[in-house]
This record gives sequence, C-alpha cells and structure tokens, in this order.
Amino acid sequence: MGWPPAGGAATIPVFRMSPTDLAQPHVAKLHAYTPGLQPTEPGWVKLNTNECPYPPSPRVAEAVRREVGEDGASLRLYPNPASAPLRAAVARLHGLAPENVCIGNGSDDILNLLVRAFCGPAAAAGYTVPSYSLYPVLVGMQEGASEIVPFDRSMRLPVERIASSRSRIFFLTSPNAPTGVAFANADLERILAAFPGILVVDEAYAPFADEDAVPLLARHPRLVITRTLSKAYALAGIRVGYALADLEVIGLLDRLRDSYNVNRLSQAAALAAIGDVDHLRANVGRVKATRDRCLAEFAARGWFTYPSKANFIFTEPRDTRGVAGPEVARAAYDFLCARKVLVRHFPSHALTASFLRITVGTDPEMRVLSESLDAWQSNRSA
Amino acid sequence: MGWPPAGGAATIPVFRMSPTDLAQPHVAKLHAYTPGLQPTEPGWVKLNTNECPYPPSPRVAEAVRREVGEDGASLRLYPNPASAPLRAAVARLHGLAPENVCIGNGSDDILNLLVRAFCGPAAAAGYTVPSYSLYPVLVGMQEGASEIVPFDRSMRLPVERIASSRSRIFFLTSPNAPTGVAFANADLERILAAFPGILVVDEAYAPFADEDAVPLLARHPRLVITRTLSKAYALAGIRVGYALADLEVIGLLDRLRDSYNVNRLSQAAALAAIGDVDHLRANVGRVKATRDRCLAEFAARGWFTYPSKANFIFTEPRDTRGVAGPEVARAAYDFLCARKVLVRHFPSHALTASFLRITVGTDPEMRVLSESLDAWQSNRSA
Repeated sequence: MGWPPAGGAATIPVFRMSPTDLAQPHVAKLHAYTPGLQPTEPGWVKLNTNECPYPPSPRVAEAVRREVGEDGASLRLYPNPASAPLRAAVARLHGLAPENVCIGNGSDDILNLLVRAFCGPAAAAGYTVPSYSLYPVLVGMQEGASEIVPFDRSMRLPVERIASSRSRIFFLTSPNAPTGVAFANADLERILAAFPGILVVDEAYAPFADEDAVPLLARHPRLVITRTLSKAYALAGIRVGYALADLEVIGLLDRLRDSYNVNRLSQAAALAAIGDVDHLRANVGRVKATRDRCLAEFAARGWFTYPSKANFIFTEPRDTRGVAGPEVARAAYDFLCARKVLVRHFPSHALTASFLRITVGTDPEMRVLSESLDAWQSNRSA
Repeated sequence: MGWPPAGGAATIPVFRMSPTDLAQPHVAKLHAYTPGLQPTEPGWVKLNTNECPYPPSPRVAEAVRREVGEDGASLRLYPNPASAPLRAAVARLHGLAPENVCIGNGSDDILNLLVRAFCGPAAAAGYTVPSYSLYPVLVGMQEGASEIVPFDRSMRLPVERIASSRSRIFFLTSPNAPTGVAFANADLERILAAFPGILVVDEAYAPFADEDAVPLLARHPRLVITRTLSKAYALAGIRVGYALADLEVIGLLDRLRDSYNVNRLSQAAALAAIGDVDHLRANVGRVKATRDRCLAEFAARGWFTYPSKANFIFTEPRDTRGVAGPEVARAAYDFLCARKVLVRHFPSHALTASFLRITVGTDPEMRVLSESLDAWQSNRSA
C-alpha cells in the first residue's frame, strides 16, 4: 500500500476520533469470550469450568520449587523460546517427533494461532454448534468468514456435511463440549478422506475418552490435534497446551506464536506433569468412576443425559412435574447457585438452554450436588 | 460472506494442497522474529538479551512457593482471568485506575494485541527504524500496511515526520533499542498534539531513564504506554508486561486477549515484584552505575557510543588502526563469542551494522568484556 507524503494529516479531524473510532471496525464490534465464573471467596462447590478436582502430580510442585530456587535467580533469564525440553517430552509421550509439536500458552493460544494461519475474510473457518464457544470469538478477531454446521438433538456428528465443507479449516471438539459426546476415529477418517482443508480435533477432554485421534496423524498431514494440561493434568493454573500436527503446520504456528510464549515456571511444571504417567492415570480413573456413577444416577432420576466421555455431564433437569426446558434449567441453576454449588448454563442456544453442564468433582462434591438437586425437586413440587 | 452449499468440494483438488498451500498467503511468507540466543550450557557471559544481571526481589520466590503450596493444588484452578489483583497493583504504582491497565503474557502480548486492534491492510502501523524488530513481524502477521520512519545517524527523534504521519497507530521505543537513546516528553507531546492516531510508547527500558511518559496519559487518550517486568524487575522468565492507556484502549485489548492470558505463578510473582519498590530501585541503581562507568570507558577507548538511558550500550568498535564498520563489528562479535562473551550484532541495517549492543551486566562481567575487547584490539593490530 502506498503512503501519502507528510502534510495531508490536517484533513483528519484531530482530537475527534476516540480510540474505539480508530480501531479496526470488526474489533470495535467484538464480544469477548465469556469464561466461567472464577469465584475468589471460598466455600463454593465449583463444578463450572471442568477443572480437575484432584491436585496435579506432586512432581509439579517440586519442579516449580526447583526452577524458582532459593532466590528466584533463574527467573531473570528468558525461557527456552521453543519450550524445547517440553516439546521433546510431549513428542515422546505420543510417539511423534519434536517437529510435530508446538507448545502454547494454553491450548487457546494454539487455537488462536490456527485461526490466524488458516482463516481470513476469504478463507472460512468451520465449526459445529454447539461446541467450544471460543471458536467464533477467534474467527471474529480475525474478521474471518465462518461456516456453522449445526448439530441436531441427537448430537451425532454430521459427517457428510463436514466432509463436503469448503472451509479452509474446520474445528471439531471431541469429546464435544458442552455435551461430552465423543466422535469415532472412523467418522474422523471419513471426513479426512473428502474434506480438503485443515481438520482440527480439539482433544481437551480426550484423556477421559476411550479413543483419541493421535494414531490418524501419521496418515493425515491436514489433521491437527490440540491438547491441554488444564483438565486431565489438573493444571489449568499454568496455561499450557499443545498442537500435534504435520511439521508444515507446526512451522506455521511457530512463525505466528510469540517467541517466548510459555514462561519458565509453566514449562517446568508441564514437563514434570507429563513425566508422571501413573498420576495422570490415577486421576483420570477416579474422575471417570465418579462420572459413570453420576451418569447412572441422572438416568435413575429420569433426566435425559448425553453419554459423556469427558470430565463433565450435560443433563436436562426435570422438576417433579416432569417438566424440562430453559426455565427449568435456569431455575435449577439459580437454586444450586444459592446453595453455593456452581455449574454452567448455556441459555443462548436451543439445544443447550434446557441443560446444565456439570463438571465431575470429588465424590463428596457430587453428593452435595445430588442432595441440592433433591432439595430443588422437592421445592419445585411444593 | 455467503457459503456455497455442499457438493462443490470436488472442484478443489483433494490431497493436493499442503498445509502451507492452505495457509493465508501472508502467513506462509512470514519470517519469524529472531530472539537473541539463549545458550543452555553454562559458562557464558550473557550480555545479549538485556536481562537484569541481578536476581529479582526475594519476595518473588516466596510468592511463587506460597502459590504452589505443598502439593500444587491451587494450580488445578484457572487463574484470575483479568489478573485483577496485579492490575490493581500496577494501577496504584502509576497513580492510575485499574481500568487504565491491561496485563499481558509479556509486553510482546500487548504489542501483538495493539497491532490486531488498530492495524490492517488499510490501516497502517508506523514505526521507526532502527527500533524493536518485533513491530514489523507483528504487522506482517496482521497483513497490515506499514510506514517506516527512518532515523539518521544522529538518532534524534524525527518529530515533525511522526507528527504528520497518517498511520493509524505508531510505535516508538523510548529509550530506543538498540541505541539506548531516550526521547523527551516535550517531543512526545509535540507528536501527540498533531498526530491523530494511537501513539504507543514502548517503555521496556524506562526504569533506567530519567523521565517517562506516564504523566502524559491523563491528557492524551490516544497515548498507550507499554511496560515489561523482563528488564528492570529481573523477571524475563515469567513473561509479564502491561499496557497503560485510556479505558477505551484497555477495553479493546481485553476483548482481544486470551481470557486467561497470564498464568497463576506469573501473576503471583509479578504482584510480589511490583510491591518491592526498594529492590527495584537498588537493582536499577546498580545497573545505571555500571552503565555510566562503561559509557565513560567506551568514550575513553575512542569508540562512538550513543548516550544510553537503558540497560545496554550501543557502541561502534574500532580496531587499533582506528577503523570501524560492519566487518570490524562482526570481527569483534566473533572474537567475543569465541571467548564465551555473548553480545548482539544487527548486521542487516546500515545504521546498526557497525555497532554492537551490549547488555549491562555485573561489574565482574563487564570487566571480562573489557579485557576481551582489549585482547581483540591487540590481536587485530598484531
């Protein structure tokens, strides 16, 4: 773009344009992503942001203490710019090469970079609805075109629809949020066989599922898998996630990411967590056992509940008159909130408004939830 | 943008497009920012990335240990999404309201958000050359138009040229990198009086200078100041920086940033560091004393050196024949490197190629540097 020589500035009304007027128009109109509430006062049963109810590997605290040392002297130096030791460990974990891994400041960082790499006004990003509500926010930041593939109430993956998508990049969450429904590798392969763009499978919750898409990577250079340490590794506080993909995709992400995107303490913490496979297995096992018990309990309650393969449950509350719906879900949410039990309600979509998304907590936490729901049902019918 | 119905996909050559072919064309062509070397083996006198040679406040290590606790349990929870306590502390430090502060994952995060908010193909970002070489990289990621305002060898700020700029956003580094030359508030005010866009003053090195632009914020809603904890606070390892600006600018940054962009450990570390004003003052005082002694030494050596107000020195090496130039600077760099003294050489621009940028280290480190330069000069003349 050419640039006018000095002197023409007087035609712009100086002191008249506010910062918002000066912003890119699509940015000025953006709505930020709404994260779940993070209450700062104690006493809440917090079942709203899919955190792990158990602590991370004890090696994490050790590693952080080691990194910080007596006097924090190591913190004066920049971190490893490529998170190289962590990249190598993640690669080993999944049987890949370090060139197939990019570490992010949370997997949200990776998703943002993927949108910047592949999406624009003339190159759409596709995603299903309902799914992780960050995708449309990231596409909006990029002024990107978008393609929405709706689910129906069955929440079965619309394989043919995605396979014939003309989006440049398509985001799938598996297991999906907020439903917990996992998609089979066979279906992902049917999509990959026909869809000519980049398929991102956001596997934030995959450690709680029976299958993951990692084995497909070797055959599919346009498949990208994203993972996070926020859920199964119990490390939402350190903000580490990663991409697994063909080295060309990783090369693009590395060109776009901040050159020191992951700080020293988080790199040390993540490396320690990744190395403790037994702790991961134990934590995931406990969460799955509680989840499956609670799924049975919701079934016994007569509430329609999707078959979750994640660390949360998406269930449709019914009052004792047997009525379900957005108002009933809202009433249940409010009742729980008043008892300091925090879950998540997504009122803005017809397929989610009648449901609550409940993170799987500890067994005692789930007992509090259950008793609160009993109390709510008796209240409603009273 | 409309979207063609399913069925048209067959016209795209399936399996022929590589990930790079699918990427946004401007992204496929990007060159990543080149950070300074971060050697992993010990034994280096590391004077290449403007880190602080002294440890951070002892309160930092304490705060990190407190946050991580015995078993790291707090790390299972997401961080405060707005970094609210840190935002409040930064606001107090500068006599501003929390609404005038946005915390970033390093100030590079903030710079990236500013480019995304205000720059695009039809809205240029301006910057001086030489300056922080990240600006053109960020503009390239955004496929943004750019306006380059060149310095001459005097490194005096081209006030009229910037004041009449038609860029939507203009980035100035003060004190500038890699020269160390600081710009006066009087000059910034002359720019702000005429320039109708957003003026960013990147004050990464301002704690080492005699003046900063914070007092101008109250009168100038289009002024943005960025700061980092990587230099004066000796915390490059935790990746925390921030913006100070009008609440409208902060609102835009908050809409664009990742909703959990700063992890728990870095928030705790930064909060502790910000609170220890005495430690900051002492560290900055030591660095400035060493800097001013070294500036005198370079002058005595007869090397042209800019009057640095930062924590580094930009000097033009001369061999004993009195010759300066890109080859001489390169030879000095290589000689130092062979002695495990790491400095920075920027060969790609005429105004920087004859110089070395040398971070101010400890007094013993600067003695090693000095002796190495003596040895280089005798070698050259031998």
